[in-house]
Amino acid sequence: MKYVQRNDLALAGAMTDVKGVRTLRPSEQPNRDAYVHVVEEKAGGIVVRGAKANITGVAVVDEVVVMPTRAMTERDAEYAVSFAIPLDTPGVKVVVGRQINDGRRLEGGEIDGLPYMFNHEGLLILEDVFVPWERVFLYKEWRWAAQFVEVFSNYHRQGYAGCKSGLGDVIIGTAHGLARQLGIADKPHVQEKLTEMVFLNEAIYSAGLAASWEARRLLKNGGWWVDPMYANVTKHLVARFPYEVAKLSHDIAGGLLGTAPSEADLKNPELRPLLEKYLQGVPEFTAEERLRMLRLLENTSLSVAYLVESVHGAGSPQAQRISIQRVYDFQRAEAIARRLAGLKAEASGDARAEPRRPAEAEK
Amino acid sequence: MKYVQRNDLALAGAMTDVKGVRTLRPSEQPNRDAYVHVVEEKAGGIVVRGAKANITGVAVVDEVVVMPTRAMTERDAEYAVSFAIPLDTPGVKVVVGRQINDGRRLEGGEIDGLPYMFNHEGLLILEDVFVPWERVFLYKEWRWAAQFVEVFSNYHRQGYAGCKSGLGDVIIGTAHGLARQLGIADKPHVQEKLTEMVFLNEAIYSAGLAASWEARRLLKNGGWWVDPMYANVTKHLVARFPYEVAKLSHDIAGGLLGTAPSEADLKNPELRPLLEKYLQGVPEFTAEERLRMLRLLENTSLSVAYLVESVHGAGSPQAQRISIQRVYDFQRAEAIARRLAGLKAEASGDARAEPRRPAEAEK
Amino acid sequence: MKYVQRNDLALAGAMTDVKGVRTLRPSEQPNRDAYVHVVEEKAGGIVVRGAKANITGVAVVDEVVVMPTRAMTERDAEYAVSFAIPLDTPGVKVVVGRQINDGRRLEGGEIDGLPYMFNHEGLLILEDVFVPWERVFLYKEWRWAAQFVEVFSNYHRQGYAGCKSGLGDVIIGTAHGLARQLGIADKPHVQEKLTEMVFLNEAIYSAGLAASWEARRLLKNGGWWVDPMYANVTKHLVARFPYEVAKLSHDIAGGLLGTAPSEADLKNPELRPLLEKYLQGVPEFTAEERLRMLRLLENTSLSVAYLVESVHGAGSPQAQRISIQRVYDFQRAEAIARRLAGLKAEASGDARAEPRRPAEAEK
Amino acid sequence: MKYVQRNDLALAGAMTDVKGVRTLRPSEQPNRDAYVHVVEEKAGGIVVRGAKANITGVAVVDEVVVMPTRAMTERDAEYAVSFAIPLDTPGVKVVVGRQINDGRRLEGGEIDGLPYMFNHEGLLILEDVFVPWERVFLYKEWRWAAQFVEVFSNYHRQGYAGCKSGLGDVIIGTAHGLARQLGIADKPHVQEKLTEMVFLNEAIYSAGLAASWEARRLLKNGGWWVDPMYANVTKHLVARFPYEVAKLSHDIAGGLLGTAPSEADLKNPELRPLLEKYLQGVPEFTAEERLRMLRLLENTSLSVAYLVESVHGAGSPQAQRISIQRVYDFQRAEAIARRLAGLKAEASGDARAEPRRPAEAEK
Repeated sequence: MKYVQRNDLALAGAMTDVKGVRTLRPSEQPNRDAYVHVVEEKAGGIVVRGAKANITGVAVVDEVVVMPTRAMTERDAEYAVSFAIPLDTPGVKVVVGRQINDGRRLEGGEIDGLPYMFNHEGLLILEDVFVPWERVFLYKEWRWAAQFVEVFSNYHRQGYAGCKSGLGDVIIGTAHGLARQLGIADKPHVQEKLTEMVFLNEAIYSAGLAASWEARRLLKNGGWWVDPMYANVTKHLVARFPYEVAKLSHDIAGGLLGTAPSEADLKNPELRPLLEKYLQGVPEFTAEERLRMLRLLENTSLSVAYLVESVHGAGSPQAQRISIQRVYDFQRAEAIARRLAGLKAEASGDARAEPRRPAEAEK
Repeated sequence: MKYVQRNDLALAGAMTDVKGVRTLRPSEQPNRDAYVHVVEEKAGGIVVRGAKANITGVAVVDEVVVMPTRAMTERDAEYAVSFAIPLDTPGVKVVVGRQINDGRRLEGGEIDGLPYMFNHEGLLILEDVFVPWERVFLYKEWRWAAQFVEVFSNYHRQGYAGCKSGLGDVIIGTAHGLARQLGIADKPHVQEKLTEMVFLNEAIYSAGLAASWEARRLLKNGGWWVDPMYANVTKHLVARFPYEVAKLSHDIAGGLLGTAPSEADLKNPELRPLLEKYLQGVPEFTAEERLRMLRLLENTSLSVAYLVESVHGAGSPQAQRISIQRVYDFQRAEAIARRLAGLKAEASGDARAEPRRPAEAEK
Repeated sequence: MKYVQRNDLALAGAMTDVKGVRTLRPSEQPNRDAYVHVVEEKAGGIVVRGAKANITGVAVVDEVVVMPTRAMTERDAEYAVSFAIPLDTPGVKVVVGRQINDGRRLEGGEIDGLPYMFNHEGLLILEDVFVPWERVFLYKEWRWAAQFVEVFSNYHRQGYAGCKSGLGDVIIGTAHGLARQLGIADKPHVQEKLTEMVFLNEAIYSAGLAASWEARRLLKNGGWWVDPMYANVTKHLVARFPYEVAKLSHDIAGGLLGTAPSEADLKNPELRPLLEKYLQGVPEFTAEERLRMLRLLENTSLSVAYLVESVHGAGSPQAQRISIQRVYDFQRAEAIARRLAGLKAEASGDARAEPRRPAEAEK
Repeated sequence: MKYVQRNDLALAGAMTDVKGVRTLRPSEQPNRDAYVHVVEEKAGGIVVRGAKANITGVAVVDEVVVMPTRAMTERDAEYAVSFAIPLDTPGVKVVVGRQINDGRRLEGGEIDGLPYMFNHEGLLILEDVFVPWERVFLYKEWRWAAQFVEVFSNYHRQGYAGCKSGLGDVIIGTAHGLARQLGIADKPHVQEKLTEMVFLNEAIYSAGLAASWEARRLLKNGGWWVDPMYANVTKHLVARFPYEVAKLSHDIAGGLLGTAPSEADLKNPELRPLLEKYLQGVPEFTAEERLRMLRLLENTSLSVAYLVESVHGAGSPQAQRISIQRVYDFQRAEAIARRLAGLKAEASGDARAEPRRPAEAEK
């Protein structure tokens, strides 16, 4: 989940439970703590237990907002819980996960040490944490869990438009720079690949723009509700195109992307003149410029942030497919087709001519 | 090009010249008439000659608006011409082209005769046609030809979002109906395919929405300028996804899509009971319903309008790629990448930090 | 299904039943005749009823070989039947299906009349047809139906390698010719597209070669058993790549592919000089050459044979996926992965180290 | 390039020069040593200088076989050189390149330390190395450089079928294991993804089989010449499909693939019980089993060996496209198309009916 900074308070939203057996509901799990749940109700608040996974930036936030991760039934009521707590609340543990090439940071280099990458994801463990009532947002109201998830997910899915196409711009810029270093930026097949990368990247961003512009204003509180179809389309494009952008960037960068020497070798006095001679492309750029750009490309195009998170962030691809299927009005599309084919509307009346409109919102 | 109806005047925009040798400019062509051009200047107007190809709906419009199809140099000045004329102006000829299955219309059937398809494309031939001055918009001002093309193309490219995703909705609705007729609408792999079709179709539409919402208002005349990046992304998605949607619809429809009997056979008293028995899927639908939906799918999913026009309408894919490449700011992306990699900006200054902004427009 | 000619006897294999409700077994269908079945046993033979769909070339064969289309249970025993009969056996009816542009044949032209296309698909109806015992191959032996289907399907799936890549060669050749007529055959983006078409087409063919070369000789009768994995991979590639090849060919051909005038207009004395002037590309080729090549491309790249049949012939894509999943040894792959990850083999023993080998065949 | 072990001699083939400015020939480079070349001819042999990049396993071989990397002209004669030398020959330097997660090896762990990955790639630098005549295979015979490259490349390209589909099997097996650990192995969308991975992986392998089976025996020395079309198709599939297989494996594995804790955290006595509880899926598997499989997937599916090398090994994608274009007989395909379209063969005779056959080889 994403963290946001407002004034001087950094927040992380924590949604994804560890889930145990994926095919079972929270109340059916062999491990009762597989989803965060209420273990005790006290006068001043509640005690919760469980863990939330995959939380971006979790180790550096002030507060975490915990939310349910799925629709609930009455039996799951103790799992329908949402609240916010400071990260240093007693009973809270954070286990930061590993990311590609993290071991290189220990070397302390200014090139290989990934000085430009500070993101991390982590596991948030709640060991019988006390939450006072004024910080509880949802308490066993299981009927609202589904909508809680849907609203948050759609915003989150739309948000990936900027997140991943921004990272895509860095990758495109790096590939463009490496093409210039090799003297091939004007070659037709390189231009084809650069253009393809831009097309894929801008397609992601345009879907996100549509999701925002087509948002509906909520009647009661003046907030905006991002369009659910385009939000899910955005995230589903994000779950596909970055792998293609990455591949094209690797194609342009050349095989050295996977075989470039270490910063330590470049700085080794015996090797440096040789590497400066043999890693240089066109004379306008140095070997060090090439090595720096290759390392940047390696650690963006193969990063958790650009690949794995693009697949799983804000819900796995299958979650978007379920949303897309739900939002689309198949009956109306079929009714139009039947009319064109010279057939009557079906008696069942589900083949209606008018589009569905959400009752609770207006444009 | 597209035709539009305003009040009681139907118009067609005619842009695509027949072009002769594609690698030569208008003034270099062995056939001097390969692009529409001015052949004589008279007191009251000009005489033009040439032909415009691929004009949608051309045989039923009141007027055609003729525009140049490419950037011009000074030598091409006689080809930099734009004007509007009524279709029945002396010297104008229209040759309507063939479309898939057009021969079936001659049979007069209500199923096989494509009663729902009335579109056509045609060739407009101008044989020394006189155009009075008040109807001439561009006359040898060759410097403006490029912008003429760019503005019109971008609007046209954005417009395909609605055109093709609307047709896509019909195809999705037809596939959904056929899946229900076969009793397979709830099968996981069929749901996967329907959802994929919706995703592809809505991705097209969302890019078109972005192109419209991100339009800029022109300072002088209050008109709007569609966003060039998202307009081209829209059309480029249109040039790809419909073939995939078509394939998925064929997959769901079953092999009978390519082997279904004729309307005449269905109405043949000897065959009708047999076909009614053997073409029926689930009992809730009749064989005739199935045949009608199969014919609708055949004549939409394999139509010129959904396939060939999706590739070539408003410019071939390569035209969009050139636009996308032009609009994207590679230098800025590279400058950001260099900064992240710990490198200085390049002395040339083309690695700038600020985005390009169009001088002539504001949001 | 395919027809083959041996000496002077043309045969068609008839496998695909009309199937009624797709989710029900033969014996569960509301329409008892939804699958071909035995309706009576006589002294000299059996009486069969039902229909087989999608049979290629069925109207011009001497004999049809009827086979079951799926695995059967004991309750389906009357549907487990295979036999061969002459096409003119009493009670046999053939209903030829429609194909794209078939209506144009009635016009009698030498260009638009599709003189190069003679294929057809049809529905074979068996109305209480008597089959003598010596022509019955399978009679209520329901246990063998599945293997019957599997063996035939795998051969059929492999066979599409040649069928569709041959048609692909024609499409590539036509696109190449049209590119030369427009003077663009040497443009980088056109060469990219032609090369991509070849790559996709040869990938199909190479999988078919692998399926044949890796065939196993059957111990008992000396025949060969095509490799089931590569046969299914072949057909699955066929179910995908032709739509992409078609799209690329349309891209190269230009928009005129969807708007080219009729043969009648070309032969009209008033229009002919105009069309000859305006449809010509480079001077080395005539407008008629272009029109002929465009019609050939239209009627191959958008044909039932290249698109719909590529999806559904020899079983729909889902059928190949089920086969691929069955043939692949997931347990062995997982066992290898576990070993690499430093884990013990599972006690269940299904995570075995040795590959599965078919007992009944040798290389 | 690949290394091979024969008896007790491990060899590496070194082909890829560092290339400097990619658009210039060896003799045109500003850096004269951008390609390996002869700097001096002596009585007993030659002295060579330059560097070869991207050599798999180079640090652990006994001998390297150096070959030219491209076609040469007469001016490039000093660069047309091939020879074999022991790795410990004076003047030879090896710089091993970095690979994803290499920094973790320093931690010494049995899970995070990549105990199953021992591959490396490196840069071979030749600083005025003396090579005796008996070890020189090509000496300024520039006309043979192109064929040298072609023969070696085609073998190498075919060889990727086994290399990458073997790695693909490990990834499929790992994904299958993780799906079982999460209890989702039987979910339709997971089965779809596993089947798709198998299909893509086996398509790669089948093309490689075709390249081998269709090899031609060389007349003179009895060796075999791998089929050039299928060898290039194999490598081109390898340059595409692994990224898709990787994406699907990430989809199945879940987001924990990018956020899983370190081995050190798992072994920390305070955290271990918590991680064992929260990382466990179905009760049949432990958290450690899951962590081990996640690390294996991370370090195979995101490895240089499976991604970057799949793109660039044995030549970049563009190299295969050039080969595919060269080997395919466009003229013959066009001649067949013209005949079908009712057109005469072209006078130029290049539209021939017979296929090209290599003169120097027979089947």
